[in-house]
Amino acid sequence: MQLLGKRWTVLILYQLLSGPQRFSEIESALPVSGRLLSERLKELEEEGLVNRQIYAEVPIRVEYSLTEKGNALEPIIRGIQKWSEVWVEVNLAP
Amino acid sequence: MQLLGKRWTVLILYQLLSGPQRFSEIESALPVSGRLLSERLKELEEEGLVNRQIYAEVPIRVEYSLTEKGNALEPIIRGIQKWSEVWVEVNLAP
Repeated sequence: MQLLGKRWTVLILYQLLSGPQRFSEIESALPVSGRLLSERLKELEEEGLVNRQIYAEVPIRVEYSLTEKGNALEPIIRGIQKWSEVWVEVNLAP
Repeated sequence: MQLLGKRWTVLILYQLLSGPQRFSEIESALPVSGRLLSERLKELEEEGLVNRQIYAEVPIRVEYSLTEKGNALEPIIRGIQKWSEVWVEVNLAP
């Protein structure tokens, strides 16, 4: 649960709710640095919340998606987004 | 939102969902040290999530309760509790 409190985690999970995405897609959707994004994705992978799928294409394609455990966070992520709209200046919605 | 990820925060909020309580009541309900509990309550107060009410009685009585902003976190707290029951060994329920 500590991971949920880390900066960008909820926004990355919120982003992945709309389906599997490549690193560059997530990076362009969020004002987060590439270094921090890859750090968070690695942590999310270690926690079993995100799956990293490598496609043996040329060039190679890597996609990130929510696991079942990650998807089960949806009500919490949506709840945080709604709560933030009312109580926090920074809006989660893209 | 970083505060939600800090150790014990969700459990303290979960505890206060059942209404105003004194420090000793919260402390006896959770396996948290007094020092850390008072630190978290102070942070929660600063974030406007918890209200600290002092009653001019002898001896003096201090009660902690959720503010409107704190109570608005209920769906998220309940969601984390349900998610944890399925996906995390440590159970939130008292």
